[in-house]
Formats: sequence, structure tokens, C-alpha cells
Amino acid sequence: MDDGGDLVNTLHAERPELLAAVRGGCESTATGVIRLRRMAAEGALAFPMVAADATTTKRMFDNTCGTGQSVIDGVLRATNTLLAGRVVVVAGYGACGRGIAEAARGLGAQVVVTEVDPVRALEAVLAGFRVQPMADAAPAGEVFITATGSRDVIAGGHLPALRDGAILANAGHFDVEIDVQALAEAAVKVTRDVRPHTDEYLLADGRRLLLLAEGRVVNLVAAEGNPPQVMDVSFAGQALVLAWLAAGAAGLPPGVHAVPAEIDEQIARLTLESSGARIDILTPAQRDYLTSWRHGP
Amino acid sequence: MDDGGDLVNTLHAERPELLAAVRGGCESTATGVIRLRRMAAEGALAFPMVAADATTTKRMFDNTCGTGQSVIDGVLRATNTLLAGRVVVVAGYGACGRGIAEAARGLGAQVVVTEVDPVRALEAVLAGFRVQPMADAAPAGEVFITATGSRDVIAGGHLPALRDGAILANAGHFDVEIDVQALAEAAVKVTRDVRPHTDEYLLADGRRLLLLAEGRVVNLVAAEGNPPQVMDVSFAGQALVLAWLAAGAAGLPPGVHAVPAEIDEQIARLTLESSGARIDILTPAQRDYLTSWRHGP
Amino acid sequence: MDDGGDLVNTLHAERPELLAAVRGGCESTATGVIRLRRMAAEGALAFPMVAADATTTKRMFDNTCGTGQSVIDGVLRATNTLLAGRVVVVAGYGACGRGIAEAARGLGAQVVVTEVDPVRALEAVLAGFRVQPMADAAPAGEVFITATGSRDVIAGGHLPALRDGAILANAGHFDVEIDVQALAEAAVKVTRDVRPHTDEYLLADGRRLLLLAEGRVVNLVAAEGNPPQVMDVSFAGQALVLAWLAAGAAGLPPGVHAVPAEIDEQIARLTLESSGARIDILTPAQRDYLTSWRHGP
Amino acid sequence: MDDGGDLVNTLHAERPELLAAVRGGCESTATGVIRLRRMAAEGALAFPMVAADATTTKRMFDNTCGTGQSVIDGVLRATNTLLAGRVVVVAGYGACGRGIAEAARGLGAQVVVTEVDPVRALEAVLAGFRVQPMADAAPAGEVFITATGSRDVIAGGHLPALRDGAILANAGHFDVEIDVQALAEAAVKVTRDVRPHTDEYLLADGRRLLLLAEGRVVNLVAAEGNPPQVMDVSFAGQALVLAWLAAGAAGLPPGVHAVPAEIDEQIARLTLESSGARIDILTPAQRDYLTSWRHGP
Repeated sequence: MDDGGDLVNTLHAERPELLAAVRGGCESTATGVIRLRRMAAEGALAFPMVAADATTTKRMFDNTCGTGQSVIDGVLRATNTLLAGRVVVVAGYGACGRGIAEAARGLGAQVVVTEVDPVRALEAVLAGFRVQPMADAAPAGEVFITATGSRDVIAGGHLPALRDGAILANAGHFDVEIDVQALAEAAVKVTRDVRPHTDEYLLADGRRLLLLAEGRVVNLVAAEGNPPQVMDVSFAGQALVLAWLAAGAAGLPPGVHAVPAEIDEQIARLTLESSGARIDILTPAQRDYLTSWRHGP
Repeated sequence: MDDGGDLVNTLHAERPELLAAVRGGCESTATGVIRLRRMAAEGALAFPMVAADATTTKRMFDNTCGTGQSVIDGVLRATNTLLAGRVVVVAGYGACGRGIAEAARGLGAQVVVTEVDPVRALEAVLAGFRVQPMADAAPAGEVFITATGSRDVIAGGHLPALRDGAILANAGHFDVEIDVQALAEAAVKVTRDVRPHTDEYLLADGRRLLLLAEGRVVNLVAAEGNPPQVMDVSFAGQALVLAWLAAGAAGLPPGVHAVPAEIDEQIARLTLESSGARIDILTPAQRDYLTSWRHGP
Repeated sequence: MDDGGDLVNTLHAERPELLAAVRGGCESTATGVIRLRRMAAEGALAFPMVAADATTTKRMFDNTCGTGQSVIDGVLRATNTLLAGRVVVVAGYGACGRGIAEAARGLGAQVVVTEVDPVRALEAVLAGFRVQPMADAAPAGEVFITATGSRDVIAGGHLPALRDGAILANAGHFDVEIDVQALAEAAVKVTRDVRPHTDEYLLADGRRLLLLAEGRVVNLVAAEGNPPQVMDVSFAGQALVLAWLAAGAAGLPPGVHAVPAEIDEQIARLTLESSGARIDILTPAQRDYLTSWRHGP
Repeated sequence: MDDGGDLVNTLHAERPELLAAVRGGCESTATGVIRLRRMAAEGALAFPMVAADATTTKRMFDNTCGTGQSVIDGVLRATNTLLAGRVVVVAGYGACGRGIAEAARGLGAQVVVTEVDPVRALEAVLAGFRVQPMADAAPAGEVFITATGSRDVIAGGHLPALRDGAILANAGHFDVEIDVQALAEAAVKVTRDVRPHTDEYLLADGRRLLLLAEGRVVNLVAAEGNPPQVMDVSFAGQALVLAWLAAGAAGLPPGVHAVPAEIDEQIARLTLESSGARIDILTPAQRDYLTSWRHGP
């Protein structure tokens, strides 16, 4: 059970004699999966690895609900600012951005979404969000939250347009989404920790910009990351994948493999049970109908 | 450009001499795609067909937003009933069911979702909906809307539990989701068209159940189906696919093919433009960063 | 039981001999109440009249939920336009405007509110709506719905800014909120009923504006007005007021009187019961606590 | 400028010689206003006091938005629990309860409301919330938040029905809404601070109940109370009231007086300006129309 690919890497590089005994494993982060895919592409991965970062249940719990709530939690702990009626700009409308945008709207904010991908942008539009380029959103926003996976999403060029008191937070994995260096260069004075995890950048024209968590991922730095219910789902997936690999029924070749849909369903089923929710079960007649419909004569 | 697979079927069965001249085509319905896949599996499909029913843009516009709005529109035209504060039971939380559930909630209804798929059920739970088996939802519901693709979702066994005045509507393609025959057998009197597209079934114990559109798809029968903006997106997809096939650049073998992501993006881009929304464009530095991150050393 | 004050007016003007036998009455419209207040101010009202237009239950059901839903219903029947992702401008954020704004947002629209009252404007802001002057909203809006009680809310001066295809609807009582005459004067061609209750005004520059219901109240003209559940609540209020007056316990002097809170509560209680909802009852200890807290030593 | 009535009380009781020089004052809490009303009723209040606790702007900002956000903030800081998909029971649907219910729903929770007032209960129903007596909500709830102003809202009698892991929080002013003594008596073991501001009560049957902030007001104890934007609005109201009293234009007799609508409007106007929002201004023709309509011949 790996996190970031380090274990797999170390095994291959330093303990090759152990590789033959490994039936397989699972990787829980997107970064690790990227590393594994490169190894696999080069023919260097000696056993099957399951990409446990990408189940539907994990995406729903972790990226959308967990990140959505915990990022807002981080912003509130750092600033205690009121969100109702404020213009919150969410950069990126992937699974995380969507969760953040919905949580902010749920607390009464007027949310603007920025995107580079037209399909995601359209998805945001159809969900009722205003979509604008960052250059247009910059002068209106009161709180900015980046969740794109890209860099310089709030860049030096945007700084002149920002409002006095604007709050800048990053929810992406790396601290490159807000160009902190450009911010530092534009500032005539930086006051650390005007509140916990809030630094004030005073610009020459008197505007003050508030950078949270030094541009690092705000839900981990200023709040507590994902709630335990989210981790439960992630760990359940990893445990079930290992059990499935250990049982040997999988018979997978070396390479990177998706979590089988059955395990995703099992996680969902267990999660529903633990919450007390119950669902319907197909009757035999319904099962026949659906089968004949999809595969019939 | 086919709808339901009839054209392709006729071509193969009755005009085989024309097959050689066909570069390819596109199919706009899920039903047609199922037929095409069967033909392809038997090696009987003589040219490439693109499954234009399943782009992300079409799913968002057609299944979720278009169906969500038009099903509610159909229920309101047929009944003029107030949705605010009423218990609306939505059976099925696929793309259509989700759209219906959100639209009903958006008008103030208290929505209960029923599902057979645990992953979709969990998705509904995380979106804030109450999820129950139909047997539990039956005595509470005031309006029922089926969107499952299955049959007997509201079956004879549920009828004794339904409330007086319960409204039954189907949004699925076929009229088998509500067991209309069981309803007819349980009724001591049926009054057609107590309002347009609303039949009243009087049960022996005095309860009256209101069946909309005879159990046929309520947004087509009682309203006007998808709004033109939705059809624009669908037709745009089909036209772009045909242009792509005609340009010959595709070089696809016979079989069923997905719409390329580029066309989906192009549809999204055109739709955004026509609505006046604008999005960001990756800078060269951002493009490098994203590329190196995903494919780098 | 009067509607608009006509009965009371006729009684005083034409049948004064009957006045002495009248114990009182109730008036169900805001217009009628205004007339009654004028009569009372002049000392001309011979018996007590209860302003049944203004209970909390009626405001919630009729103005917010009933009007909200039925106005959207009217717009959809007249246009079959998709609301998801569209910019809907709601002019006026009173009880009706709020209901319309929430219903439009609930169907995925991006709602802009215009107001003249700063308190209501702030209420809209805190509910997450964008608030703008009409001059700013005009170029962005795709659907406009007026609900202000004022006149010329969409006036000749706004027409040059409107987008091609903009839909104009009025939800206010009188047909003066959209300046239809200015629209007619700006048009080079008017096509009646391009759809039911939709007239197209072609402007000299080629833009087409769609006026619904000739600027008259769209939920009555293009849909069916308030759902029966709403009328139930209004009539329940009037019936209970009359019973209370007839029982003589009221002992009210001539003039205009508010519906007593007990009757409002009774309507609410009956409505909850009919929907199957149940609520808590204060325990004696709770009642003591609340009493002592508010009136204690 | 008083808070809780202490200053006014001390003045009258201990420094009566100063009373004559006092032009008036304002009181910012509901509790203080109750005390003032009692004094006024007894003829003991020597100067005019303005009840600054009850402006529309303050109710919107403070009770609904401020409390809504900060109570959720308190629950998250104390528990880091995921709200999406969880059953959150909000007791009381006044201005505070409504804010809490909407914030919880906005984060994806399935919200149940309990009430004793049928009008408020109906308001919750029409807003799409499920309304139940606490006895019915108790076995389903995963998080309970009381905001009633009453006592024993979660009482000893409810404890046997609560789920293992249920979280109990109070948002009311006094710590009597959750019967903490009954909870202590039912517990076989109490573990303080399993997380900050979270005490675990272990019951004999193995269930654990989590009491936040010892039953005291959770947004003040576990979070930071109202955001500064909310306090700005409250203080603006008090300052404007004092300026108005000092200017002497008021000419108010001794007693408790409401904040004049003009001051409420001025607060709203200033708040809108500071947020950058702009609104429409009535034209002279509109002003005439509205005046003639309401007061005309």
C-alpha cells in the first residue's frame, strides 16, 4: 500500500531481490500513479499496481465533498470572514473546484468560476455559476481559491486589479497556483500572521492583500484536511484492493490497473450501510429486462 | 446521421450495394448505439459509426438540464400542483434522475431518491438527498417520477401504501416503469383527463391516484421535450462528427467509435461563445508545467 | 368576503340601509385593503374589515412559493427555453421577486436581482444573488422578469442594450412594468404569437426581443396562476376570519384590522396536518421557562 | 450604548442625579430590550431607549448569515466531521435556526427541522426541509444543533433513541437547550476533550454521544462568534442611532423605541456601497406612480 510511489520505487531500485515475492499493491495518490505509469511504460514495473486514487467513491468523498468542506473550513479558521453575499472566485472546476464552489455557494457566496477547459467551464455554467477569465474576475473577487493543478493562476499581472482586502487561498497540491514571489515583490510591507495562517501584503498604493497559508494547500495548513469519514472511504478501498490481490483471483499482469467496479460498489454499499441508508434490489424480472434490453436478440 | 439505427439497418439489409460508398455516420440515441454494437460484435457493421449519444456536453445539456427542466415542466402542465414543501420521489439517479431531483429541490420540494446502484445512491446521499427503498418512500411521496430505464419501479405491490392524491409520472424512455396494468386492475374507476394528460384511478378504499401521460414519458407527452438550446448542442455534435468523418482525417475502421474529445471541446467552446461566457487560455509556462508534470522526467 | 373592495364599496354607496346588519368582513387583495384604508381614514367605513391579504401563511404560499413556481411555469410554457446556465434578471426582491429568483436559481439559472430598496437589495446579496442596476443588467440578461409593483422597470432607455433574443416577462399585477409602448415604437416589425403568448419585436438593427403575455402578468396569462394548494391556504384564512367575526368574540370597532396571529397559526397547523408533517409541543416546563424569561421578575 | 441593560439599570438605581442629562440611548441585545420594556411598563424608564437589536439589517447579518456560518464553523472546528450526506437536525427555525439549516444544507447535509410554532414549521417545509418532532428526528440525526431559546430541547427522554456517535451542539444563548445533567446521569463515563470542545459521553449500552462546548453556545466557544462584517453592521446601527438621538431631531418620549426605517435603510445603503453593489433609483415618474397608487384619490 503505497503513497506517492516511494515504496515501489525503493523496492525496484534498492531491493530487487524482493520483487518476485510481491503479488501486487495499490497506490493512493495521483502523483504516485503518474510515476507508476511511467515505470510501466518503460517496462520497469515488475508487478501489478492498482490505482486506488481514482475510484468514483473516492472522487466523490475526497475531492468534491471532503475538499469542498475542508477548504472552506480552512478559509474560515484563517480569516473568520463572512461568506454570505461575498464574491468568491474559484479557479478550476474539476472535482475539487466543484466541491469548493458548491460549498461557498451553500454558505451564501456569489461564486465566479474560472477555467481553461471549455467542457468544465460549460459544466459550471449549467450549474448556475458565472464563468469569467481571471482578468475579469480579479477586480470583483473578495475571496480567491485556486484549485487547478496549474501554476500562476493568480499571477503578478492580476495584482493591480485586486480589491483592497482581497483574500488569496490555494487548494491545489503545490504552492505554485498563486505567484507568491510576484506578490512579495509587489509589496512594500509584509506582516506575517495578522491572524493565524494569514499574511498581509501591503502594496504601494495602500491596498492590502491577505495570503493564506503562504499559498500552500489551505485545508491542510489552516484546517485539518479531510474529515475521518473521507479517509474511511479511501482506506476501505485500499484494504479491499489488497484483499482482492492477495486472494489471487485477480490474475493481473504487471502494470497499472483500475480498481474493479465491484470494489467501488462494495465501498459504496458499506458506506450506505454504515449511514443507515438502504436501497432497492433488482427483482429477477427487472434484471431480465435490463439484460435483454442491453444484450438481447 | 441516424436516429435509432433504422437507417443503418435498412442500408445493410436492403441496399448492400451502397455500403461501400459510406465513409461513416453518427447515431444520436442510446438505443441505436446498442443495436450498432450488436452489429459490430457480429462483424456485420460495414463502416465506422460514431456514438454521438454520449458526449459530455450532450449528457450535461440533454439528460441532466434538459430532461430535468422539461420533466418538471410536464408535471406542472399536467397537474398545476405546488412543488414547494411536497415530498417528491425520484426513482433513479442517473444523469436524468439527477437533473429531475435537482430541479424539484430547486423549486422547494423535499426530494427522496430511490436507486438500485450503490455508487449512484451514495452520490445522491452526498448531494444531500434522502435515499430510501421505494417501499419506504411509497407512503411518504406526494409526487413520484421514475427515471430508471428499468420496469415495474412503481409496481402493484407499492399501490396499497400510496397516499390519496399521489401523482405518478414517468420520465423513462419506455412506459414500463410504472406498472399501469396493475394500477388499472387495482382501480374501481378510471376517469380519463381530469386535467390534460392526467387520469384519475379511484381505488376501492377511496384513494385516488393520478397517472400522468398514461405512464409514457411525461416531458414529451405533457410538455414539449427538450428546449431548443439542448437540441442545438446535440445537432452541433452530429454535424461536427460528420464533417470530421467527411474530411477523411479520421481513418476509422468499421465499428462503433466514441466522439473524439476535441469535438466535445469544440461544442463546449461554441456554446460558451454563443452565451457570451469567456474562459482563460493556458499561458505557455502553464502548458509547459502541466506537460512536464504529467509526462516529465 | 370581498375581492378588490367592490362589495364593500357598493354596500356603502348603494345599499346603506344594509350596513347596520353587517358584523364585518374580510378583504383578500392588497388593492382592496388600500381602498379600505382610505375609507377608514375618512371615517367612512361602517364596520370592521379584516385584511386577509397579509397573513404570514398567505405571503409564504401565495407570493413566494406560488408566484415563484407559476411565473417560471408561465415563462416555460410560453418559450420552452432552457433556464440552466442562462442569465435571468429578476426586477424586484419583494416576496414575489424572491420566490421567482429562487425558483430560477433552482433550475440552474444565473440570477441577477435589481432593486430600488437598499434593505431588500442587501437581502438579495446575502442570499447569494448578484445585485445590479437595470442599466448594468440589461446587456447581460437573457430572460427578464419584473415583479416590482412599479412602472417602466424595463423602459425605452434599456432597449438599445438588450441582447438579441432577450425574453421579457412581467409578473407584477399591472402591465406597466415593461414599457410596451416604447418597445412597439422601437420595433420595425412585430410578429404576434411566434409561440403561444410570445410576440417577437424586431428592431431596426436586427435584434429580436420576445415579449411574453403582452407584458401582462405572465403566470395568469401563460400558465394557470397559483396552484390549488395555494388557494386552499388563502380561502382557509378567509373562512376562519369570517367564522371568528360571526362568533362575535372579536368585538372589533369599524376599521381595517389585521388577521389575528391565532388564525395564522391555525392555518399553518391545518396545512401541516394535511401534509402529514408533525411538530413538537411545548412541555409545561418549557412554557414556564419561556414565560418567565420574557415577563419574569 | 448599552449591552444587556446593565448601564441603564445602574444609572437609574445608583446615579439618578445623572438621568436628567441623558438624551437617550440604544440597547444592542434582545435580553436588554426585555429588561427595558419591563422598566418602561412600570413607568420607571426616564429617557428614550432605542431597541437596536432588531433592525432588519441586523437580523439578516447577525442572526441568519453570521450565526448560520459561525455555528457550522464551530461544529467543524470541534469535530472535523463531514456534513455532506449526514442527517443534521436543527431545532428551531427562527432567524438563527434558518441560517444554520441553510448553511448545513449548503454543505450537502440532509437537514431535519424541529419546531413548536406551526407558522415557522410551515416556513421550513416550504423551504424544502423535512419537519419532524424531536422524538422522530432523534433516531435519525447524526448532528443536532439547538437554536430555540427554550430549554430541554434535547432532553433525557430523547437519549435512548440517539445513534452511536451523535453530535450534540447548542447555538442558543443559554446552555439549557441540551439537558446536560440528564446526559451526565445517563453516562457511565465522560471523557473530556476527546477533541477540543468535544466531550464524549459513554452510555451503558456502549453508545457514545459527543457534546460540544459543554452545551454552551457553540459558535462563541468553539469558533470565533460573528465575523467582523456582521459586527460592522451592528455597530453602524448603534452609531447612527446615537447620532440621531444626539441631533435632537428625534424628540422621543421616554420608553422603548424601534430603530427608524431610515436608519435601517442607511445601514443597508452603506453596506451595499462598501461591497461595491449598486442599485436602481426611482425615477420621478415611478415615485409619482407608487405614491398615487398607495395614497391616491
